[in-house]
Amino acid sequence: MQVGVIGLGTMGANLARNAARNEATVAIYNRTAERTDVFMKDHGEEGNFIPCTSYEQLTGALEGRRAILIMVKAGDAVDTVIEDLLPFLSEGDILIDAGNSLYTDTNRRVEELRKKKIHFIGMGVSGGEEGALHGPSMMPGGDMEAYKYVEPLLMQMAADDGDGGKCVTYIGPGGAGHFVKMVHNGIEYGVMQLMAECYDLLKSLGEFSNQDLHDIFTAWNDTEELHSYLSEITAQIFLQKEKDTYIIDLIRDKAGQKGTGKWTTQAALDLGVAIPTINAAVDARILSGSTAERAEGKNYAVHVDNTEPIPRAMKFRSSIRSSMELSSICAYGQGFVLIQKASSEFDWSLNLSEIARIWRGGCIIRSSLLKKLQNAYSTDSAIAKTANRNLLDRFDGDRQIEWRQVVELGISWNIPVPALSASLTYFDTLTRKNLPQNLIQAQRDFFGAHGYERTDKEGSFHTQWAEGQK
Amino acid sequence: MQVGVIGLGTMGANLARNAARNEATVAIYNRTAERTDVFMKDHGEEGNFIPCTSYEQLTGALEGRRAILIMVKAGDAVDTVIEDLLPFLSEGDILIDAGNSLYTDTNRRVEELRKKKIHFIGMGVSGGEEGALHGPSMMPGGDMEAYKYVEPLLMQMAADDGDGGKCVTYIGPGGAGHFVKMVHNGIEYGVMQLMAECYDLLKSLGEFSNQDLHDIFTAWNDTEELHSYLSEITAQIFLQKEKDTYIIDLIRDKAGQKGTGKWTTQAALDLGVAIPTINAAVDARILSGSTAERAEGKNYAVHVDNTEPIPRAMKFRSSIRSSMELSSICAYGQGFVLIQKASSEFDWSLNLSEIARIWRGGCIIRSSLLKKLQNAYSTDSAIAKTANRNLLDRFDGDRQIEWRQVVELGISWNIPVPALSASLTYFDTLTRKNLPQNLIQAQRDFFGAHGYERTDKEGSFHTQWAEGQK
Repeated sequence: MQVGVIGLGTMGANLARNAARNEATVAIYNRTAERTDVFMKDHGEEGNFIPCTSYEQLTGALEGRRAILIMVKAGDAVDTVIEDLLPFLSEGDILIDAGNSLYTDTNRRVEELRKKKIHFIGMGVSGGEEGALHGPSMMPGGDMEAYKYVEPLLMQMAADDGDGGKCVTYIGPGGAGHFVKMVHNGIEYGVMQLMAECYDLLKSLGEFSNQDLHDIFTAWNDTEELHSYLSEITAQIFLQKEKDTYIIDLIRDKAGQKGTGKWTTQAALDLGVAIPTINAAVDARILSGSTAERAEGKNYAVHVDNTEPIPRAMKFRSSIRSSMELSSICAYGQGFVLIQKASSEFDWSLNLSEIARIWRGGCIIRSSLLKKLQNAYSTDSAIAKTANRNLLDRFDGDRQIEWRQVVELGISWNIPVPALSASLTYFDTLTRKNLPQNLIQAQRDFFGAHGYERTDKEGSFHTQWAEGQK
Repeated sequence: MQVGVIGLGTMGANLARNAARNEATVAIYNRTAERTDVFMKDHGEEGNFIPCTSYEQLTGALEGRRAILIMVKAGDAVDTVIEDLLPFLSEGDILIDAGNSLYTDTNRRVEELRKKKIHFIGMGVSGGEEGALHGPSMMPGGDMEAYKYVEPLLMQMAADDGDGGKCVTYIGPGGAGHFVKMVHNGIEYGVMQLMAECYDLLKSLGEFSNQDLHDIFTAWNDTEELHSYLSEITAQIFLQKEKDTYIIDLIRDKAGQKGTGKWTTQAALDLGVAIPTINAAVDARILSGSTAERAEGKNYAVHVDNTEPIPRAMKFRSSIRSSMELSSICAYGQGFVLIQKASSEFDWSLNLSEIARIWRGGCIIRSSLLKKLQNAYSTDSAIAKTANRNLLDRFDGDRQIEWRQVVELGISWNIPVPALSASLTYFDTLTRKNLPQNLIQAQRDFFGAHGYERTDKEGSFHTQWAEGQK
């Protein structure tokens, strides 16, 4: 197999090395040729690389039907590469955009290139730099036939799913691959924020040390319920020192973001799906970096409700673990509802079970929960029924009460718990028989004559609410 | 003054009647002429109307420089009207889009029409049908000189602000008027959701009757802090009966929405502003209408934390009032932060104090709080300082503790409090010295080498987190 790679940042370079390790001949190109030279110096011996300094050279180096992976900054840069590359391509050639492109951009590019008889695959890649090198999770969308052509190489490059499969599958048409990757990142935002809130509660209220926190996250990672890549690396983070100081205590409390979380929230709104845990996580990152508002906030007096007792250590650990687990299920669940809605709205026929499966290895949100979700979305109804039953059971009994108590603790003691509380209020909204939105409909009908539905009969109704109102 | 009105739905018809009552000659047009006939039959005697059946006739009926108000469905319909109208317009004519258009559409229309020397004013109008007739709050944006031409009529049509002024002012260039109206609606979503949650707590936990609820909202409306149009109409809603049944108890708990709340959330994300109270309100409406997910939610067991005692009646009323007040300040505050950010980002030079002032009458979110915000954003630093001090004081002492306890109650007892808790966690995030986002930055640096800032020195740093990681 031959493949071209455009863009030799660490992600692109590592995907190129991964392909070469799997016996592919890899023609490489970078806009600044110096980076190509450095790549050849550092990794040239690892496999069969062909360094190129122009698109003409790159396309000339590939024999037969070309497959070229593009890993450049999402946005205009992708269009620029495509435009400059086009004169050197032939009918049937395949371009694979492996960056975090917005799915609507991918929809457009697939359509535009189809007219030119070029296949465009928008492929989400998760796993960070190490994943790219040793085995990422890959979410390719676009033309199925073109995917099949590159599938053998992608299968070799991808991570194992833990059950003998590989973490790559054809997702669906158009921008489906990038949509699914976007939601993956949204879930990632949610889980990371939940962990940050648990960390704050454990540290600030439970007074656990960094060593304790390492032990707690390690213990989580050893459970069937919270085993995950993020638990594992978080445990490691708490031990890392610079001289005598824990690095975690030196890092500024201002979280960055690159846009996929925000896109997830915006797409969810366009599709009419509520993903409050993920939204809270996006807002929490924004607020952490809102310097002016945080400075202003320091002027406000804080009064805690000190009637809420802080549980003893082991009880508190257990309650936090329950809260993390149930809230995480909400975060993943919201993501899958969003994917499901996109699938029906865009007629993508997405396979939710397969999506859960290919997230089980290589990617940032890989976790034991995904095995359960793979089963819960299985087309085998017996498997799905059992898996759903098991997920329902997790919310039963004391765990749910512990979840409530942990959120109450944060609320009592001025520990911000936006994502934990958004998860719980999501659960409370969905489980509650009657919501108070009847009042909102009454208000809307009062001032805007928007009408309302009734519980006792079909139709749309309007009330003359008061004198002078219509 | 002469004015044209296109679109005779209730909002358009009432604005036309309002203009005629204020001595304007009003040329009216509706796409289906039948509606114009009905209008003339019902209201033709109220003032000087010229019914028209074509754009040619409409523009011919207006002497001198034309001002034409368009009130049609936001979106493509506005572009269609503009396109069909253009051949009959002359240089300097003024089009006023009084619908709920997306501000980016208005930006575009202002630019496109400027090239044709036609002035386009995007004007938010709030107050519902009754407001349109008797005095709305109006938020015009676009060309200042064109606004000045129509200002005399708009000043006559607008509501009073309670201090001798009128609820209309030039907002800013381009789509600024529609942006501000969009945020107005976002705040409206937030306040309505907060009221719905208070209603649920009072009804479900406090076991207050509809008569009690009427008394409570009436009492709110009689306070300096919660006096508002929404308190007033909500009090009235609880008394309205159909035969022996309260209508509020017959209305389905499924809230509709028309998009401006969603747009507010999406715009906030694009501008990097966190408005969690408003976001929670948008999500709550979505969830109330998510039939499939609510049906699924009923399968989950609910376990309440019954250790949280429900306060006695009067204490509970007081706590709920405090929660409503402090959460409302968050909702309004988030809206103003968003407007401020848009102003600096788009170079709009918006006057926040004036925006608060013109919301004090006519519109749905009119409330005594807006007088405080008008002062808090005043350019007179003594007035601003006192007003800000007063707002800070509202968060002091027992009110804040009562706020915490109310959210805890909802969390304990399976009463969904997404907007109340989002408001409180917003407050807790902004008031807290150290947030746990240092962990998120550590995680991002671990798996994506994104780097982090430190508290002890300037710059961007990266750690070799673990063996095999880079």
